Amino acid sequence: MSQILSLEQEARLRESIGRQTLLTTLGIRIASLGAGRVVLELPFRDELCQQNGFVHAGAITTMADSACGYAAMSLQPLDHDVLSVEFKVNFMSPAVGQRFQAVATVVRAGRTLTVCNAEVISDRDATRPIALMQATLMAIPSPAE
Amino acid sequence: MSQILSLEQEARLRESIGRQTLLTTLGIRIASLGAGRVVLELPFRDELCQQNGFVHAGAITTMADSACGYAAMSLQPLDHDVLSVEFKVNFMSPAVGQRFQAVATVVRAGRTLTVCNAEVISDRDATRPIALMQATLMAIPSPAE
Amino acid sequence: MSQILSLEQEARLRESIGRQTLLTTLGIRIASLGAGRVVLELPFRDELCQQNGFVHAGAITTMADSACGYAAMSLQPLDHDVLSVEFKVNFMSPAVGQRFQAVATVVRAGRTLTVCNAEVISDRDATRPIALMQATLMAIPSPAE
Amino acid sequence: MSQILSLEQEARLRESIGRQTLLTTLGIRIASLGAGRVVLELPFRDELCQQNGFVHAGAITTMADSACGYAAMSLQPLDHDVLSVEFKVNFMSPAVGQRFQAVATVVRAGRTLTVCNAEVISDRDATRPIALMQATLMAIPSPAE
Repeated sequence: MSQILSLEQEARLRESIGRQTLLTTLGIRIASLGAGRVVLELPFRDELCQQNGFVHAGAITTMADSACGYAAMSLQPLDHDVLSVEFKVNFMSPAVGQRFQAVATVVRAGRTLTVCNAEVISDRDATRPIALMQATLMAIPSPAE
Repeated sequence: MSQILSLEQEARLRESIGRQTLLTTLGIRIASLGAGRVVLELPFRDELCQQNGFVHAGAITTMADSACGYAAMSLQPLDHDVLSVEFKVNFMSPAVGQRFQAVATVVRAGRTLTVCNAEVISDRDATRPIALMQATLMAIPSPAE
Repeated sequence: MSQILSLEQEARLRESIGRQTLLTTLGIRIASLGAGRVVLELPFRDELCQQNGFVHAGAITTMADSACGYAAMSLQPLDHDVLSVEFKVNFMSPAVGQRFQAVATVVRAGRTLTVCNAEVISDRDATRPIALMQATLMAIPSPAE
Repeated sequence: MSQILSLEQEARLRESIGRQTLLTTLGIRIASLGAGRVVLELPFRDELCQQNGFVHAGAITTMADSACGYAAMSLQPLDHDVLSVEFKVNFMSPAVGQRFQAVATVVRAGRTLTVCNAEVISDRDATRPIALMQATLMAIPSPAE
Protein backbone atom coordinates (compact mmCIF):
# COMPACT_ATOMS: atom_id res chain seq x y z
CA MET A 1 0.00 0.00 0.00
CA SER A 2 3.02 2.28 0.13
CA GLN A 3 3.04 4.98 -2.49
CA ILE A 4 4.34 8.48 -2.84
CA LEU A 5 2.53 10.97 -0.65
CA SER A 6 0.81 13.98 -2.15
CA LEU A 7 2.45 17.26 -1.24
CA GLU A 8 -0.58 18.24 0.83
CA GLN A 9 -0.46 15.00 2.83
CA GLU A 10 3.26 15.32 3.39
CA ALA A 11 2.91 18.92 4.55
CA ARG A 12 0.16 18.16 7.04
CA LEU A 13 1.95 15.09 8.40
CA ARG A 14 5.12 17.12 8.95
CA GLU A 15 3.14 19.91 10.56
CA SER A 16 1.31 17.51 12.90
CA ILE A 17 4.50 15.65 13.85
CA GLY A 18 6.14 18.99 14.57
CA ARG A 19 3.40 19.83 17.06
CA GLN A 20 3.97 16.64 19.13
CA THR A 21 6.17 17.98 21.89
CA LEU A 22 6.84 14.52 23.34
CA LEU A 23 8.52 13.48 20.10
CA THR A 24 10.84 16.49 20.31
CA THR A 25 11.51 15.81 23.99
CA LEU A 26 12.56 12.24 23.21
CA GLY A 27 14.38 13.10 19.98
CA ILE A 28 12.07 11.09 17.71
CA ARG A 29 12.16 12.41 14.13
CA ILE A 30 11.01 11.53 10.63
CA ALA A 31 13.04 9.01 8.61
CA SER A 32 10.56 8.66 5.73
CA LEU A 33 6.92 9.39 4.94
CA GLY A 34 4.96 7.37 2.38
CA ALA A 35 1.31 6.69 1.72
CA GLY A 36 0.50 3.92 4.17
CA ARG A 37 4.11 3.59 5.36
CA VAL A 38 5.91 5.83 7.84
CA VAL A 39 9.36 5.39 9.35
CA LEU A 40 10.38 7.31 12.46
CA GLU A 41 13.77 7.15 14.14
CA LEU A 42 15.29 7.71 17.55
CA PRO A 43 18.98 8.15 18.35
CA PHE A 44 20.17 6.62 21.61
CA ARG A 45 20.39 9.01 24.56
CA ASP A 46 21.24 8.33 28.18
CA GLU A 47 18.05 10.11 29.25
CA LEU A 48 15.77 7.50 27.65
CA CYS A 49 16.84 4.33 29.43
CA GLN A 50 15.41 1.70 31.74
CA GLN A 51 17.17 0.28 34.77
CA ASN A 52 19.81 -1.67 32.80
CA GLY A 53 20.88 1.08 30.43
CA PHE A 54 18.86 -0.08 27.40
CA VAL A 55 16.37 2.25 25.76
CA HIS A 56 13.11 2.10 27.74
CA ALA A 57 10.16 0.19 26.30
CA GLY A 58 8.14 3.38 26.72
CA ALA A 59 10.34 5.32 24.28
CA ILE A 60 10.29 2.46 21.79
CA THR A 61 6.51 2.25 22.14
CA THR A 62 6.03 6.01 21.73
CA MET A 63 7.96 5.87 18.45
CA ALA A 64 6.04 2.84 17.15
CA ASP A 65 2.64 4.25 18.16
CA SER A 66 3.41 7.56 16.46
CA ALA A 67 4.62 5.83 13.31
CA CYS A 68 1.36 3.81 13.18
CA GLY A 69 -0.67 6.97 13.70
CA TYR A 70 0.95 8.81 10.82
CA ALA A 71 0.85 5.78 8.52
CA ALA A 72 -2.92 5.65 9.15
CA MET A 73 -3.31 9.42 8.74
CA SER A 74 -1.45 9.35 5.41
CA LEU A 75 -4.37 7.45 3.86
CA GLN A 76 -7.13 9.60 5.34
CA PRO A 77 -8.74 12.66 3.76
CA LEU A 78 -6.92 15.92 4.51
CA ASP A 79 -9.66 17.11 6.85
CA HIS A 80 -9.47 14.00 9.05
CA ASP A 81 -7.20 13.42 12.01
CA VAL A 82 -6.35 10.06 13.58
CA LEU A 83 -6.47 8.84 17.19
CA SER A 84 -4.94 5.71 18.74
CA VAL A 85 -7.77 3.44 19.86
CA GLU A 86 -5.46 0.77 21.24
CA PHE A 87 -2.31 -1.15 20.46
CA LYS A 88 -0.46 -4.25 21.55
CA VAL A 89 3.30 -4.50 21.50
CA ASN A 90 5.72 -7.40 22.05
CA PHE A 91 9.28 -6.70 23.19
CA MET A 92 11.53 -9.28 21.59
CA SER A 93 15.10 -8.11 22.17
CA PRO A 94 16.72 -5.50 24.42
CA ALA A 95 16.89 -2.08 22.73
CA VAL A 96 20.65 -2.01 22.21
CA GLY A 97 22.19 0.26 19.59
CA GLN A 98 22.86 3.84 18.60
CA ARG A 99 19.82 4.41 16.38
CA PHE A 100 16.35 2.85 16.34
CA GLN A 101 13.70 2.90 13.65
CA ALA A 102 9.99 2.14 13.77
CA VAL A 103 8.64 1.02 10.40
CA ALA A 104 4.84 1.25 10.37
CA THR A 105 2.62 -0.04 7.58
CA VAL A 106 -1.12 0.02 7.12
CA VAL A 107 -2.64 -3.46 7.03
CA ARG A 108 -6.23 -2.39 6.52
CA ALA A 109 -7.50 1.14 5.99
CA GLY A 110 -11.18 1.62 6.69
CA ARG A 111 -13.28 4.73 6.69
CA THR A 112 -13.47 4.73 10.49
CA LEU A 113 -10.88 2.22 11.70
CA THR A 114 -7.39 1.48 10.41
CA VAL A 115 -5.14 -1.43 11.47
CA CYS A 116 -1.37 -0.98 11.35
CA ASN A 117 1.74 -2.99 12.12
CA ALA A 118 5.03 -1.54 13.26
CA GLU A 119 8.40 -3.19 13.64
CA VAL A 120 11.19 -1.56 15.64
CA ILE A 121 14.76 -2.36 14.65
CA SER A 122 18.17 -1.02 15.64
CA ASP A 123 21.35 -0.25 13.74
CA ARG A 124 23.06 -3.00 15.72
CA ASP A 125 21.22 -5.85 13.99
CA ALA A 126 18.34 -5.06 11.68
CA THR A 127 17.48 -8.74 11.27
CA ARG A 128 16.52 -9.07 14.91
CA PRO A 129 13.48 -6.90 15.63
CA ILE A 130 13.28 -5.23 19.04
CA ALA A 131 9.53 -4.80 19.14
CA LEU A 132 6.43 -5.61 17.14
CA MET A 133 3.20 -3.61 17.40
CA GLN A 134 -0.32 -4.19 16.12
CA ALA A 135 -2.44 -1.06 16.43
CA THR A 136 -6.01 0.14 15.84
CA LEU A 137 -6.57 3.78 14.92
CA MET A 138 -9.69 5.84 14.39
CA ALA A 139 -10.24 8.64 11.91
CA ILE A 140 -12.14 11.68 13.12
CA PRO A 141 -12.91 15.02 11.49
CA SER A 142 -10.11 17.45 12.41
CA PRO A 143 -10.96 19.81 15.23
CA ALA A 144 -11.86 23.21 13.78
CA GLU A 145 -9.12 25.81 14.27
CA MET B 1 -3.06 -9.21 46.56
CA SER B 2 -1.98 -5.79 47.81
CA GLN B 3 -0.09 -5.89 51.06
CA ILE B 4 2.62 -3.94 52.75
CA LEU B 5 6.01 -4.31 51.11
CA SER B 6 9.00 -5.61 53.02
CA LEU B 7 11.70 -3.00 53.57
CA GLU B 8 14.04 -4.90 51.26
CA GLN B 9 11.50 -4.99 48.45
CA GLU B 10 10.68 -1.31 48.88
CA ALA B 11 14.37 -0.39 48.83
CA ARG B 12 15.11 -2.33 45.67
CA LEU B 13 12.04 -1.04 43.86
CA ARG B 14 12.97 2.55 44.70
CA GLU B 15 16.55 1.93 43.64
CA SER B 16 15.47 0.38 40.31
CA ILE B 17 12.94 3.13 39.59
CA GLY B 18 15.63 5.69 40.31
CA ARG B 19 17.86 4.15 37.65
CA GLN B 20 15.20 4.52 34.90
CA THR B 21 16.34 7.73 33.26
CA LEU B 22 13.29 7.93 31.00
CA LEU B 23 11.04 8.20 34.06
CA THR B 24 13.09 11.15 35.32
CA THR B 25 13.08 12.73 31.86
CA LEU B 26 9.28 12.56 31.71
CA GLY B 27 8.73 13.44 35.38
CA ILE B 28 7.15 10.11 36.34
CA ARG B 29 7.50 9.42 40.07
CA ILE B 30 6.29 7.07 42.77
CA ALA B 31 2.87 7.68 44.32
CA SER B 32 2.70 4.44 46.32
CA LEU B 33 4.38 1.03 46.45
CA GLY B 34 2.58 -2.05 47.75
CA ALA B 35 3.02 -5.79 47.33
CA GLY B 36 1.29 -6.47 44.02
CA ARG B 37 0.08 -2.88 43.64
CA VAL B 38 2.10 0.10 42.46
CA VAL B 39 0.92 3.63 41.70
CA LEU B 40 3.05 6.01 39.65
CA GLU B 41 2.17 9.59 38.82
CA LEU B 42 2.95 12.18 36.18
CA PRO B 43 2.33 15.92 36.39
CA PHE B 44 1.27 17.65 33.18
CA ARG B 45 4.05 19.35 31.25
CA ASP B 46 3.97 21.07 27.88
CA GLU B 47 6.89 18.92 26.71
CA LEU B 48 4.88 15.68 26.88
CA CYS B 49 2.03 16.41 24.50
CA GLN B 50 0.60 15.15 21.22
CA GLN B 51 -0.58 17.35 18.39
CA ASN B 52 -3.68 18.67 20.19
CA GLY B 53 -2.06 19.62 23.49
CA PHE B 54 -3.15 16.54 25.48
CA VAL B 55 -0.56 14.32 27.15
CA HIS B 56 0.81 11.91 24.54
CA ALA B 57 -0.30 8.27 24.61
CA GLY B 58 3.39 7.36 24.75
CA ALA B 59 3.90 9.11 28.09
CA ILE B 60 0.73 7.57 29.50
CA THR B 61 1.85 4.16 28.27
CA THR B 62 5.36 4.55 29.69
CA MET B 63 3.87 5.26 33.11
CA ALA B 64 1.41 2.34 32.94
CA ASP B 65 4.05 -0.11 31.69
CA SER B 66 6.47 0.89 34.45
CA ALA B 67 3.75 0.59 37.10
CA CYS B 68 2.94 -2.93 35.87
CA GLY B 69 6.62 -3.84 35.89
CA TYR B 70 7.13 -2.78 39.49
CA ALA B 71 3.85 -4.34 40.65
CA ALA B 72 5.11 -7.63 39.18
CA MET B 73 8.61 -7.17 40.63
CA SER B 74 7.19 -6.50 44.10
CA LEU B 75 6.06 -10.14 44.29
CA GLN B 76 9.25 -11.69 42.97
CA PRO B 77 12.25 -12.89 45.02
CA LEU B 78 14.81 -10.17 45.73
CA ASP B 79 17.32 -11.67 43.29
CA HIS B 80 14.90 -11.59 40.35
CA ASP B 81 14.30 -8.74 37.95
CA VAL B 82 11.28 -8.32 35.67
CA LEU B 83 11.02 -7.62 31.93
CA SER B 84 8.00 -6.53 29.89
CA VAL B 85 7.10 -9.35 27.52
CA GLU B 86 4.21 -7.48 25.95
CA PHE B 87 1.22 -5.30 26.78
CA LYS B 88 -1.97 -4.05 25.24
CA VAL B 89 -3.46 -0.68 26.06
CA ASN B 90 -6.77 0.99 25.20
CA PHE B 91 -7.04 4.77 25.17
CA MET B 92 -10.49 5.70 26.37
CA SER B 93 -10.46 9.45 26.99
CA PRO B 94 -8.09 12.28 26.09
CA ALA B 95 -5.40 12.78 28.73
CA VAL B 96 -6.67 16.09 30.07
CA GLY B 97 -5.68 17.25 33.54
CA GLN B 98 -2.84 18.48 35.71
CA ARG B 99 -1.82 15.15 37.24
CA PHE B 100 -2.13 11.56 36.04
CA GLN B 101 -1.82 8.31 37.92
CA ALA B 102 -1.29 4.74 36.75
CA VAL B 103 -2.64 2.20 39.21
CA ALA B 104 -1.19 -1.24 38.46
CA THR B 105 -2.27 -4.46 40.14
CA VAL B 106 -1.10 -8.03 39.75
CA VAL B 107 -3.82 -10.32 38.43
CA ARG B 108 -1.78 -13.51 38.40
CA ALA B 109 1.75 -13.95 39.69
CA GLY B 110 3.56 -16.99 38.37
CA ARG B 111 7.10 -18.14 38.84
CA THR B 112 8.02 -17.14 35.29
CA LEU B 113 5.14 -15.02 33.99
CA THR B 114 3.03 -12.40 35.74
CA VAL B 115 -0.13 -10.76 34.37
CA CYS B 116 -0.98 -7.21 35.47
CA ASN B 117 -3.67 -4.63 34.84
CA ALA B 118 -3.17 -0.88 34.97
CA GLU B 119 -5.69 1.91 34.88
CA VAL B 120 -4.64 5.49 34.16
CA ILE B 121 -6.76 8.26 35.64
CA SER B 122 -6.43 12.03 35.90
CA ASP B 123 -7.19 14.57 38.61
CA ARG B 124 -9.83 16.05 36.32
CA ASP B 125 -12.24 13.11 36.62
CA ALA B 126 -11.09 9.95 38.34
CA THR B 127 -14.28 8.12 37.39
CA ARG B 128 -13.44 8.28 33.71
CA PRO B 129 -10.30 6.26 33.04
CA ILE B 130 -7.93 7.55 30.36
CA ALA B 131 -6.29 4.25 29.55
CA LEU B 132 -6.47 0.57 30.44
CA MET B 133 -3.51 -1.80 30.11
CA GLN B 134 -3.18 -5.58 30.31
CA ALA B 135 0.46 -6.64 30.50
CA THR B 136 2.58 -9.80 30.62
CA LEU B 137 5.91 -9.68 32.47
CA MET B 138 8.68 -12.20 32.88
CA ALA B 139 10.89 -12.76 35.90
CA ILE B 140 14.58 -13.36 35.29
CA PRO B 141 17.52 -13.75 37.64
CA SER B 142 19.03 -10.29 38.16
CA PRO B 143 22.12 -9.60 36.09
CA ALA B 144 25.21 -10.02 38.26
CA GLU B 145 26.82 -6.72 39.23
CA MET C 1 -22.35 -0.04 35.46
CA SER C 2 -24.34 -3.22 35.99
CA GLN C 3 -28.07 -2.66 36.28
CA ILE C 4 -31.22 -4.48 35.43
CA LEU C 5 -31.85 -4.80 31.72
CA SER C 6 -35.01 -3.46 30.14
CA LEU C 7 -37.31 -6.18 28.84
CA GLU C 8 -36.65 -5.04 25.27
CA GLN C 9 -32.88 -5.24 25.70
CA GLU C 10 -33.13 -8.65 27.34
CA ALA C 11 -35.35 -9.96 24.56
CA ARG C 12 -33.05 -8.79 21.78
CA LEU C 13 -29.93 -10.09 23.50
CA ARG C 14 -31.52 -13.52 23.95
CA GLU C 15 -32.70 -13.50 20.35
CA SER C 16 -29.26 -12.55 19.04
CA ILE C 17 -27.46 -15.11 21.23
CA GLY C 18 -29.91 -17.75 19.99
CA ARG C 19 -28.92 -17.01 16.40
CA GLN C 20 -25.19 -17.64 17.06
CA THR C 21 -24.88 -21.22 15.87
CA LEU C 22 -21.29 -21.56 17.10
CA LEU C 23 -22.44 -20.98 20.68
CA THR C 24 -24.97 -23.80 20.33
CA THR C 25 -22.35 -26.05 18.72
CA LEU C 26 -19.98 -25.51 21.65
CA GLY C 27 -22.70 -25.58 24.33
CA ILE C 28 -22.18 -21.96 25.46
CA ARG C 29 -25.29 -20.58 27.15
CA ILE C 30 -26.52 -17.60 29.15
CA ALA C 31 -25.83 -17.52 32.89
CA SER C 32 -26.98 -13.93 33.47
CA LEU C 33 -27.72 -10.77 31.51
CA GLY C 34 -27.40 -7.32 33.04
CA ALA C 35 -26.90 -3.81 31.71
CA GLY C 36 -23.18 -3.64 31.10
CA ARG C 37 -22.51 -7.08 32.59
CA VAL C 38 -23.08 -10.44 30.90
CA VAL C 39 -22.13 -13.90 32.15
CA LEU C 40 -22.00 -16.86 29.77
CA GLU C 41 -21.19 -20.43 30.73
CA LEU C 42 -19.80 -23.56 29.15
CA PRO C 43 -20.02 -27.10 30.55
CA PHE C 44 -17.00 -29.33 29.93
CA ARG C 45 -17.26 -31.67 26.96
CA ASP C 46 -14.68 -34.03 25.48
CA GLU C 47 -15.25 -32.47 22.05
CA LEU C 48 -13.85 -29.07 23.11
CA CYS C 49 -10.34 -29.97 24.20
CA GLN C 50 -6.75 -29.26 23.26
CA GLN C 51 -4.00 -31.86 23.05
CA ASN C 52 -3.78 -32.47 26.82
CA GLY C 53 -7.47 -32.88 27.56
CA PHE C 54 -8.10 -29.37 28.91
CA VAL C 55 -10.72 -27.14 27.34
CA HIS C 56 -9.18 -25.46 24.28
CA ALA C 57 -8.21 -21.78 24.47
CA GLY C 58 -10.40 -21.25 21.40
CA ALA C 59 -13.56 -22.34 23.23
CA ILE C 60 -12.66 -20.21 26.26
CA THR C 61 -11.97 -17.25 23.96
CA THR C 62 -15.22 -17.71 22.03
CA MET C 63 -17.16 -17.56 25.30
CA ALA C 64 -15.27 -14.48 26.57
CA ASP C 65 -15.55 -12.63 23.25
CA SER C 66 -19.29 -13.31 23.08
CA ALA C 67 -19.80 -12.19 26.67
CA CYS C 68 -17.97 -8.93 25.91
CA GLY C 69 -20.05 -8.41 22.79
CA TYR C 70 -23.34 -8.77 24.62
CA ALA C 71 -22.21 -6.68 27.57
CA ALA C 72 -21.41 -3.90 25.08
CA MET C 73 -24.68 -4.41 23.19
CA SER C 74 -26.71 -4.21 26.41
CA LEU C 75 -25.81 -0.50 26.68
CA GLN C 76 -26.47 0.38 23.05
CA PRO C 77 -29.74 1.66 21.56
CA LEU C 78 -32.11 -1.11 20.47
CA ASP C 79 -31.47 -0.42 16.78
CA HIS C 80 -27.70 -0.84 17.08
CA ASP C 81 -25.72 -4.04 16.80
CA VAL C 82 -22.16 -4.60 18.01
CA LEU C 83 -19.07 -6.00 16.27
CA SER C 84 -15.76 -7.17 17.77
CA VAL C 85 -13.05 -4.81 16.59
CA GLU C 86 -10.27 -6.65 18.41
CA PHE C 87 -9.43 -8.29 21.70
CA LYS C 88 -6.44 -9.48 23.66
CA VAL C 89 -6.58 -12.45 26.00
CA ASN C 90 -4.11 -13.89 28.50
CA PHE C 91 -4.32 -17.56 29.48
CA MET C 92 -3.34 -17.85 33.12
CA SER C 93 -4.27 -21.38 34.21
CA PRO C 94 -5.24 -24.58 32.36
CA ALA C 95 -9.00 -24.80 31.78
CA VAL C 96 -9.66 -27.63 34.24
CA GLY C 97 -13.16 -28.15 35.64
CA GLN C 98 -16.69 -29.18 34.83
CA ARG C 99 -18.17 -25.75 34.20
CA PHE C 100 -16.64 -22.47 33.02
CA GLN C 101 -17.99 -18.95 33.19
CA ALA C 102 -17.00 -15.78 31.36
CA VAL C 103 -17.91 -12.65 33.32
CA ALA C 104 -17.80 -9.60 31.02
CA THR C 105 -18.17 -6.02 32.17
CA VAL C 106 -18.17 -2.75 30.29
CA VAL C 107 -15.27 -0.51 31.27
CA ARG C 108 -16.12 2.38 28.95
CA ALA C 109 -19.19 2.69 26.75
CA GLY C 110 -18.88 5.20 23.95
CA ARG C 111 -21.22 6.04 21.14
CA THR C 112 -19.01 4.27 18.61
CA LEU C 113 -16.48 2.23 20.62
CA THR C 114 -16.91 0.26 23.84
CA VAL C 115 -14.14 -1.30 25.94
CA CYS C 116 -14.90 -4.44 27.96
CA ASN C 117 -13.07 -6.79 30.29
CA ALA C 118 -13.87 -10.47 30.72
CA GLU C 119 -12.59 -12.93 33.26
CA VAL C 120 -13.02 -16.67 32.75
CA ILE C 121 -13.25 -18.85 35.85
CA SER C 122 -14.05 -22.52 36.50
CA ASP C 123 -16.06 -24.34 39.15
CA ARG C 124 -12.81 -25.98 40.27
CA ASP C 125 -11.33 -22.81 41.76
CA ALA C 126 -13.06 -19.49 41.17
CA THR C 127 -10.23 -17.59 42.84
CA ARG C 128 -7.80 -18.57 40.13
CA PRO C 129 -8.88 -17.07 36.82
CA ILE C 130 -8.25 -19.10 33.67
CA ALA C 131 -8.22 -16.23 31.23
CA LEU C 132 -8.45 -12.46 31.12
CA MET C 133 -9.66 -10.53 28.08
CA GLN C 134 -9.63 -6.84 27.15
CA ALA C 135 -11.81 -6.14 24.13
CA THR C 136 -12.82 -3.27 21.86
CA LEU C 137 -16.27 -3.35 20.26
CA MET C 138 -17.98 -1.11 17.74
CA ALA C 139 -21.63 -0.17 17.56
CA ILE C 140 -23.24 -0.11 14.14
CA PRO C 141 -26.83 0.43 13.03
CA SER C 142 -28.50 -2.99 12.82
CA PRO C 143 -28.71 -4.39 9.29
CA ALA C 144 -32.23 -3.85 7.94
CA GLU C 145 -34.29 -7.05 7.85
CA MET D 1 12.22 -18.75 8.69
CA SER D 2 10.07 -21.25 6.80
CA GLN D 3 11.87 -24.43 5.88
CA ILE D 4 11.04 -28.06 5.37
CA LEU D 5 10.11 -29.86 8.57
CA SER D 6 12.01 -32.91 9.70
CA LEU D 7 9.97 -36.12 9.56
CA GLU D 8 9.99 -36.32 13.36
CA GLN D 9 8.66 -32.78 13.75
CA GLU D 10 5.98 -33.35 11.13
CA ALA D 11 4.89 -36.59 12.79
CA ARG D 12 4.58 -35.05 16.24
CA LEU D 13 2.75 -31.96 14.97
CA ARG D 14 0.23 -34.16 13.13
CA GLU D 15 -0.18 -36.35 16.19
CA SER D 16 -0.74 -33.35 18.48
CA ILE D 17 -3.17 -31.66 16.08
CA GLY D 18 -5.07 -34.95 15.86
CA ARG D 19 -5.55 -34.96 19.62
CA GLN D 20 -7.20 -31.50 19.67
CA THR D 21 -10.85 -32.47 19.72
CA LEU D 22 -12.05 -28.88 19.31
CA LEU D 23 -10.33 -28.69 15.92
CA THR D 24 -12.17 -31.83 14.79
CA THR D 25 -15.46 -30.49 16.18
CA LEU D 26 -15.07 -27.27 14.17
CA GLY D 27 -13.63 -28.96 11.06
CA ILE D 28 -10.24 -27.23 11.26
CA ARG D 29 -7.56 -29.23 9.42
CA ILE D 30 -3.98 -28.98 8.20
CA ALA D 31 -3.28 -27.16 4.94
CA SER D 32 0.51 -27.14 5.25
CA LEU D 33 3.22 -27.63 7.86
CA GLY D 34 6.63 -25.99 7.58
CA ALA D 35 9.40 -25.07 10.00
CA GLY D 36 8.18 -21.81 11.46
CA ARG D 37 5.14 -21.61 9.16
CA VAL D 38 1.86 -23.48 9.58
CA VAL D 39 -1.35 -23.10 7.58
CA LEU D 40 -4.64 -24.45 8.89
CA GLU D 41 -7.95 -24.30 7.08
CA LEU D 42 -11.66 -24.31 7.88
CA PRO D 43 -14.51 -24.96 5.46
CA PHE D 44 -17.67 -22.93 6.02
CA ARG D 45 -20.41 -24.68 7.99
CA ASP D 46 -23.75 -23.36 9.21
CA GLU D 47 -22.92 -24.56 12.73
CA LEU D 48 -20.01 -22.10 13.13
CA CYS D 49 -21.74 -18.76 12.62
CA GLN D 50 -22.47 -15.58 14.54
CA GLN D 51 -25.81 -13.76 14.52
CA ASN D 52 -25.58 -12.55 10.92
CA GLY D 53 -24.59 -15.82 9.26
CA PHE D 54 -20.84 -15.09 8.97
CA VAL D 55 -18.30 -17.43 10.53
CA HIS D 56 -17.96 -16.55 14.22
CA ALA D 57 -14.86 -14.66 15.38
CA GLY D 58 -14.37 -17.49 17.89
CA ALA D 59 -13.90 -20.10 15.15
CA ILE D 60 -11.55 -17.80 13.22
CA THR D 61 -9.60 -17.14 16.39
CA THR D 62 -9.38 -20.83 17.31
CA MET D 63 -7.86 -21.58 13.91
CA ALA D 64 -5.38 -18.67 14.10
CA ASP D 65 -4.34 -19.49 17.67
CA SER D 66 -3.77 -23.14 16.78
CA ALA D 67 -1.77 -22.22 13.68
CA CYS D 68 0.45 -19.95 15.80
CA GLY D 69 0.89 -22.70 18.38
CA TYR D 70 2.06 -25.25 15.83
CA ALA D 71 4.29 -22.76 14.01
CA ALA D 72 6.01 -22.10 17.34
CA MET D 73 6.18 -25.83 18.19
CA SER D 74 7.77 -26.63 14.83
CA LEU D 75 10.93 -24.79 15.92
CA GLN D 76 11.14 -26.29 19.41
CA PRO D 77 13.03 -29.43 20.43
CA LEU D 78 11.00 -32.64 20.05
CA ASP D 79 10.61 -33.03 23.81
CA HIS D 80 9.06 -29.58 24.25
CA ASP D 81 5.41 -28.65 23.99
CA VAL D 82 4.01 -25.14 23.50
CA LEU D 83 1.32 -23.20 25.38
CA SER D 84 -0.50 -20.01 24.38
CA VAL D 85 0.51 -17.27 26.82
CA GLU D 86 -1.67 -14.63 25.19
CA PHE D 87 -2.71 -13.26 21.84
CA LYS D 88 -4.34 -10.21 20.33
CA VAL D 89 -6.49 -10.37 17.23
CA ASN D 90 -8.06 -7.69 15.02
CA PHE D 91 -11.12 -8.50 12.95
CA MET D 92 -10.90 -6.55 9.73
CA SER D 93 -13.59 -7.93 7.41
CA PRO D 94 -16.61 -10.20 7.90
CA ALA D 95 -15.73 -13.89 7.51
CA VAL D 96 -17.54 -14.44 4.22
CA GLY D 97 -16.57 -17.35 1.97
CA GLN D 98 -16.54 -21.12 1.61
CA ARG D 99 -13.04 -21.80 2.92
CA PHE D 100 -10.80 -19.93 5.36
CA GLN D 101 -7.09 -20.24 5.99
CA ALA D 102 -4.92 -19.09 8.88
CA VAL D 103 -1.31 -18.55 7.84
CA ALA D 104 0.94 -18.38 10.91
CA THR D 105 4.60 -17.47 10.88
CA VAL D 106 7.19 -17.23 13.62
CA VAL D 107 8.51 -13.71 14.07
CA ARG D 108 10.91 -14.47 16.90
CA ALA D 109 11.71 -17.90 18.33
CA GLY D 110 13.26 -17.85 21.78
CA ARG D 111 14.17 -20.65 24.10
CA THR D 112 11.25 -19.84 26.39
CA LEU D 113 9.01 -17.42 24.47
CA THR D 114 8.07 -17.33 20.80
CA VAL D 115 6.21 -14.52 19.01
CA CYS D 116 4.03 -15.37 16.01
CA ASN D 117 1.80 -13.57 13.53
CA ALA D 118 -1.22 -15.09 11.83
CA GLU D 119 -3.32 -13.76 9.00
CA VAL D 120 -6.74 -15.24 8.21
CA ILE D 121 -7.95 -15.04 4.63
CA SER D 122 -10.91 -16.50 2.73
CA ASP D 123 -11.32 -17.97 -0.75
CA ARG D 124 -13.64 -15.07 -1.56
CA ASP D 125 -10.88 -12.45 -1.63
CA ALA D 126 -7.41 -13.39 -0.45
CA THR D 127 -6.19 -9.80 -0.75
CA ARG D 128 -8.51 -8.65 2.00
CA PRO D 129 -7.53 -10.29 5.27
CA ILE D 130 -10.31 -11.19 7.70
CA ALA D 131 -8.23 -11.20 10.85
CA LEU D 132 -4.72 -10.49 12.07
CA MET D 133 -3.24 -12.06 15.20
CA GLN D 134 -0.08 -11.38 17.19
CA ALA D 135 0.59 -14.16 19.71
CA THR D 136 3.05 -15.06 22.46
CA LEU D 137 3.74 -18.74 23.14
CA MET D 138 5.78 -20.51 25.77
CA ALA D 139 7.80 -23.70 25.40
CA ILE D 140 7.61 -26.22 28.22
CA PRO D 141 9.03 -29.72 28.59
CA SER D 142 6.38 -32.17 27.35
CA PRO D 143 4.36 -33.80 30.13
CA ALA D 144 5.69 -37.32 30.76
CA GLU D 145 3.43 -40.05 29.38
